[in-house]
Amino acid sequence: MNRRMVLYTLGHISVANAALLTLPMVVSLIYGEFCSMLAFLISAGISIVLGLLLRFTARPGTKVIYAKEGFAIVSYAWLLMAAIGALPFVIEGAIPSYFDAFFETVSGFTTTGASILSGESITSMSHGLLFWRSFTHWIGGMGVLVFVMAIIPNISDRSIHIMRAEMPGPEVGKLLPKARDTAKILYLIYIVMTAVEIILLLCGGMPFFDSVVHSFGTAGTGGFGIKPDSIGSYSPYLQWVIAIFMLIFGINFNLFYLILIRKFSHVFRNSELWCYLGIVGISVCIITANIFSMYNGLEESLRMSAFQVASIISTTGYATTDFNMWPQLSKSILLILMFTGACAGSTAGGLKMSRVVLLGKSIFRELKKMLHPRSVKVVKVDGKRVDEQVLASTTSYFAVYMLCVLGIFVLLSIEPFSMETNFSATVACFNNIGPGLAGVGPAANYGAYSDFSKVLLSLAMLLGRLEIFPLILGLNPLVWKKK
Amino acid sequence: MNRRMVLYTLGHISVANAALLTLPMVVSLIYGEFCSMLAFLISAGISIVLGLLLRFTARPGTKVIYAKEGFAIVSYAWLLMAAIGALPFVIEGAIPSYFDAFFETVSGFTTTGASILSGESITSMSHGLLFWRSFTHWIGGMGVLVFVMAIIPNISDRSIHIMRAEMPGPEVGKLLPKARDTAKILYLIYIVMTAVEIILLLCGGMPFFDSVVHSFGTAGTGGFGIKPDSIGSYSPYLQWVIAIFMLIFGINFNLFYLILIRKFSHVFRNSELWCYLGIVGISVCIITANIFSMYNGLEESLRMSAFQVASIISTTGYATTDFNMWPQLSKSILLILMFTGACAGSTAGGLKMSRVVLLGKSIFRELKKMLHPRSVKVVKVDGKRVDEQVLASTTSYFAVYMLCVLGIFVLLSIEPFSMETNFSATVACFNNIGPGLAGVGPAANYGAYSDFSKVLLSLAMLLGRLEIFPLILGLNPLVWKKK
Repeated sequence: MNRRMVLYTLGHISVANAALLTLPMVVSLIYGEFCSMLAFLISAGISIVLGLLLRFTARPGTKVIYAKEGFAIVSYAWLLMAAIGALPFVIEGAIPSYFDAFFETVSGFTTTGASILSGESITSMSHGLLFWRSFTHWIGGMGVLVFVMAIIPNISDRSIHIMRAEMPGPEVGKLLPKARDTAKILYLIYIVMTAVEIILLLCGGMPFFDSVVHSFGTAGTGGFGIKPDSIGSYSPYLQWVIAIFMLIFGINFNLFYLILIRKFSHVFRNSELWCYLGIVGISVCIITANIFSMYNGLEESLRMSAFQVASIISTTGYATTDFNMWPQLSKSILLILMFTGACAGSTAGGLKMSRVVLLGKSIFRELKKMLHPRSVKVVKVDGKRVDEQVLASTTSYFAVYMLCVLGIFVLLSIEPFSMETNFSATVACFNNIGPGLAGVGPAANYGAYSDFSKVLLSLAMLLGRLEIFPLILGLNPLVWKKK
Repeated sequence: MNRRMVLYTLGHISVANAALLTLPMVVSLIYGEFCSMLAFLISAGISIVLGLLLRFTARPGTKVIYAKEGFAIVSYAWLLMAAIGALPFVIEGAIPSYFDAFFETVSGFTTTGASILSGESITSMSHGLLFWRSFTHWIGGMGVLVFVMAIIPNISDRSIHIMRAEMPGPEVGKLLPKARDTAKILYLIYIVMTAVEIILLLCGGMPFFDSVVHSFGTAGTGGFGIKPDSIGSYSPYLQWVIAIFMLIFGINFNLFYLILIRKFSHVFRNSELWCYLGIVGISVCIITANIFSMYNGLEESLRMSAFQVASIISTTGYATTDFNMWPQLSKSILLILMFTGACAGSTAGGLKMSRVVLLGKSIFRELKKMLHPRSVKVVKVDGKRVDEQVLASTTSYFAVYMLCVLGIFVLLSIEPFSMETNFSATVACFNNIGPGLAGVGPAANYGAYSDFSKVLLSLAMLLGRLEIFPLILGLNPLVWKKK
């Protein structure tokens, strides 16, 4: 293990983190929030000093990194960003407990959107801090490291290992030969789409500040709101805009690139996309029918259903209504959507649609094999043969994914809450959604959990965001020791 | 598809079923229960007429069967046995609704032990019917078809296809070259162990009738009791005996055969066994500590903990206390044990321990592969290399298993019960355990569910008992059509 290279890269990231903190500092300045500004200044200072120290003391002999260095860098980078990102909340005094602030920041960077803040605390928070909360979503959505790689000069010639460890989905396709160029194109698409959403929200009469933070939350599929009822008090037009953009940010970004270079046929043939849209369509129809009597007319029930489905399947977590009050069938469908997640290569969390497709095809093949034991069947996706290795990895991933859910759920069970609360909290944090059901539903928050559980759920969010393996390997001292 | 052979075999099974019904008829006669006796007589008559009709009208040209005929025979045989087995309850009047009686009989044959009967209804039931309820456990435990194969002359020269479709676990090992001989040995072990339990219960002062039905319930890992509080009112000695036998009947029967032929080293090397005992040990320790304050002293809390753990992991479903009143942590552990199940090749349901071991090893290999992408790793169990095919099947099975749980849970959600009730009902029926938590806990029953849900849960029990694939393939008209 090239430890010096790991520390050296962490130094770079810490400096970049300081740069990120200047943005909310400016926001605080504009709104004349002196306390917040100072909090950001101190945090940025700590971050920059730490970063420079690491960069100068750990200058590596060789810049070559392999898979395990990639895992270690990604794991520690995320912990570092969250640990420093939590400081402004504590220094300013908005969140007195460091555990709470850490939970909130992990929830931000992992684009979960689970909050320990009550409606009152959110409304009384400074603009600078609210901006920072949502900005962490925007950074975390595309990946902290991908961001660092896109803006600073080549750290290593093998940065693909870092990208692989951080990007969600079963496979990381390099759009361009160089990992850094791919990162730049993805960020460009990301920035443009965020800007379009901001403009559309402004057109609907949403204030500028609100438009920016909500677009950050949508783009990263995060879900931190700035009002006690999330998106509930905005106009139907604004709700529709956010709903549609949540769905868009749940689509594989590679498809947007393919559209840009006019390869439309590749987009139409993409089975993951159709599967995603199909599941959204069916869920919206069933839920609309199920909740029809609770709202005024078809438009409202369709909007409520579509918004909540888009929010949950894209793992954003915004809400326009307290879906915890919905009938059990609708709640169960939402619970299932919490697992599937949206497309690989998007900012969404969860299992990812491409894995669901692969799992479905594996099962179908298994059925065929039982009838004709000696036949050899090949699984195809989008007309191409899927490597047996990828299939095996997908099914193993699903197994470890379910085991994580069960394990976290059992550990969380020492809390005196109902099974519905604990189970949905586990699922909502692990899949980076945010609100769960019952005690952690959209009208409630995670504040009632103990510090132990907050750390556990923070870990769950990180495990979910980094797709389990990188974190397990990156933080594992046994992996560090091995040559 | 050799349809005539399927129908012909079903005819054999229907006749065998009539033979089985004579046993509770004799019990009714002994206790002077005229009504019950008549009910069994009529049911046996229907069964024998139907069976003879099928045997004479569908005499097949060739007796050769393949995998798909095996699946069809097993699927329809189980439905047929349950459909006829439900008649005595309806005819006698103990369970007026046929849906309820069907649920109860499926629950019996699949060794689930989920009941729609209240405590009062059970105490007022005739001895004949109580005997029949428990006897279905005993028959279903080893397999209806395995039973038929063991007692009647060779139906087909390829009966291994039937056995494979019915026996639980990832692989069916033939102990002896002929499937029929293997079936006989397994049944012999089964009968002897049941007899030993009856004797031990009699020694502890349990009445003869009670000893027999409880031994049937333990042997098949079923769980139908004859008292409103299940095993709660019996002495500590009797509770310990049943707890230990539940654990024993959760062990792979092949190991007992290996002990018989003195191959002890094979038994000691069996990783599934150690994994099973390890999980039991850890669970018992944690739960004992967790519930210590609720009971009088160490012996009682240890007994309560051990009994409930043995009952759940072996998917029996007896109870000595209302574990629904236990702290959340203990309940969550029990919920996890509901999934794992006991060893393959036993009468227990659930995922099976050998699959858990294989899944764990697959995940571990996946982690290693991420660090060294080009290395080739082989998974070994008990010192032997596991075929990649078996690994792929196991992970696919796990995926389809979890999808079934989620699917049934969503469909069950149209019922107005809590998530804890519906989810644990799904898990408890699908894994053939019986009691769940909350509304279907050990002190409650499934009577409140609608007829639709009762049929759904009956299907869940059959899916769980036959391990999904055979039922999906056996009942699928698309499979029937294909040449």
